[in-house]
Amino acid sequence: MGPHPAVAAIRLAVRRVLHDLLTEHHRAPAAVPHEPAPSSMLRSTKAVPPSPPLVLVACSGGADSMALASALAFESPKLGIRAGGVTVDHGLQPGSDARAEEVVQRMRELGLDPVDSVAVTVGRAGGPEAAARDARYAALDTAAERHGAAAVLLGHTRDDQAETVLLGLARGSGIRSLSGMAAVSGAGGRYRRPFLELDRQTARKACMVQSLPVWDDPHNADPAYTRSRLRHEGLPALEKALGKGVVEALARTARLSRDDADALDSWAGQAEATVRDAAGLLECAKLYALPPAVRRRILRRAAIAAGAPAGSLFARHIEEVDRLITGWRGQGAINLPGKVVARRQGGRLVIRQG
Amino acid sequence: MGPHPAVAAIRLAVRRVLHDLLTEHHRAPAAVPHEPAPSSMLRSTKAVPPSPPLVLVACSGGADSMALASALAFESPKLGIRAGGVTVDHGLQPGSDARAEEVVQRMRELGLDPVDSVAVTVGRAGGPEAAARDARYAALDTAAERHGAAAVLLGHTRDDQAETVLLGLARGSGIRSLSGMAAVSGAGGRYRRPFLELDRQTARKACMVQSLPVWDDPHNADPAYTRSRLRHEGLPALEKALGKGVVEALARTARLSRDDADALDSWAGQAEATVRDAAGLLECAKLYALPPAVRRRILRRAAIAAGAPAGSLFARHIEEVDRLITGWRGQGAINLPGKVVARRQGGRLVIRQG
Repeated sequence: MGPHPAVAAIRLAVRRVLHDLLTEHHRAPAAVPHEPAPSSMLRSTKAVPPSPPLVLVACSGGADSMALASALAFESPKLGIRAGGVTVDHGLQPGSDARAEEVVQRMRELGLDPVDSVAVTVGRAGGPEAAARDARYAALDTAAERHGAAAVLLGHTRDDQAETVLLGLARGSGIRSLSGMAAVSGAGGRYRRPFLELDRQTARKACMVQSLPVWDDPHNADPAYTRSRLRHEGLPALEKALGKGVVEALARTARLSRDDADALDSWAGQAEATVRDAAGLLECAKLYALPPAVRRRILRRAAIAAGAPAGSLFARHIEEVDRLITGWRGQGAINLPGKVVARRQGGRLVIRQG
Repeated sequence: MGPHPAVAAIRLAVRRVLHDLLTEHHRAPAAVPHEPAPSSMLRSTKAVPPSPPLVLVACSGGADSMALASALAFESPKLGIRAGGVTVDHGLQPGSDARAEEVVQRMRELGLDPVDSVAVTVGRAGGPEAAARDARYAALDTAAERHGAAAVLLGHTRDDQAETVLLGLARGSGIRSLSGMAAVSGAGGRYRRPFLELDRQTARKACMVQSLPVWDDPHNADPAYTRSRLRHEGLPALEKALGKGVVEALARTARLSRDDADALDSWAGQAEATVRDAAGLLECAKLYALPPAVRRRILRRAAIAAGAPAGSLFARHIEEVDRLITGWRGQGAINLPGKVVARRQGGRLVIRQG
């Protein structure tokens, strides 16, 4: 008799990602520390067999990441992969250090090794959710580097993805913000999200049938957090109005939007070189001839290159700069975040700081 | 003392659209019926002054379209435009004919002329909302042609747009379905939506302060309709979770998505010619080299050209065809809607009916 369908589903999801990692690992040249980099010809003749890669799971002790940890522990030995885990103590609740130690213990019981608990200090920049996220990823990056891990698995599910798409939708800043979380992200593709196509209920069920104790983070139910309100009120109301397929539709929207945004970014990157004059200034007539979607991406890139912080640069800023091209009637300079100023001068668009 | 801000807002919105229409009207060559078409040189020397254009408003008697009718009646004489109106009797409620006559009367009182009431028979294709919409636009097209109208104004507001984006999101079929309603649409750009950036509350307020009687369509509050559920439950819950800016963000998403979808469609249109061989077949290797967003659009175009109905062709169909390119392992033919079959043969993708 095979495992419960929920357990089979989480294992399959993890197996696929581990398989991808192995393929990439064997393709990549073996790392030879403390030696001068060999020439590519030398390297190809005396290739060193790669050591078994280490994969870490980021585990909060919640159902999603406990399910992920259990599946990683089960699948990795069969593929010759070493499996470890990290839990991050955000220090936001009394007793969070004891909680982190408990999660470490549970990961050890699953057979993961090495297992780390990392305490972080959460700042305030960008609001409580963003600050906690920044601190968490910084800690995970450090842990991955310390252990020389090939990858860090994250337990985000399709439901998390749907919430992320709605959060992006609320910003109204275009399809990049609709593209949610990537299955592969971070430096060198370090972060992998095997459960992005799996629903939260399956992860929960997999923990239950494996008798894995799970911990429900009270933040997840705290209506002070936007994501929590979305999870417990916004998304259920939307499902009631639009039908049960909403979560799946949002996740599919994320995938499609990501590909679309990537394609348009690459178009804008190529087109940018063709609309600059010999002095490197943007020529308004050439910008005008481009599709609006491409032109606005070039303007955004130029504003960021001039020093405007990407996170403060909104669609309405870019639309205003765009009117220097499409609705020119002698208007003055446009002030952008980061003290960047855009003005039209002699048929050229000048975007610079100060 | 100027008009109430809500009245000023609806008039400004209509004035902008009428101004666009006049610009287009004067740019277009004058229509000279019952005469052989003059050569362009002759036309440029003996240009006939264009007759005053007629603009119709589609009016249900609800607040949005009554506000639109009042603004059209106010603005059009100042611009030398004739203003008329059409109301469509969908015959879906007892007494709808009397209701339509009442709306005709109200449009006459506003000074609109000509004014029409058109009775339609609503079919069943695509569900009650789609069937009513199809019948309505067919009637409006006919009315516009009968009167030789330059344009038909529609009262859709920013709130309607937000609802349309969420309905598209629920389909999960990509950014085209997130792009909502266009400000300009239909044959020759016949339909114009002056209120697409205006909120419903402003239209309602404008009717109130002008003492215009309005009629609330009971369908708009009927929870049997998806849009009604979205309006009264889904969207308010989303606003509660994400904040008051959601409607505006959704409308902005629509604009940005439309431009993005247009740009990618034009890219796919151009790229399609480059990936066909001498016999007109799609070459898999060349398709493989394109960005996924462009490749999938080419596959979709090819399937529709082969006879697959656009409305039944979902993202998952295209993804399956795409795997013939990106994940080729000898799989068999893929069945698509409209009896269209896609198969890979000798490095070519063959998509045809039967």
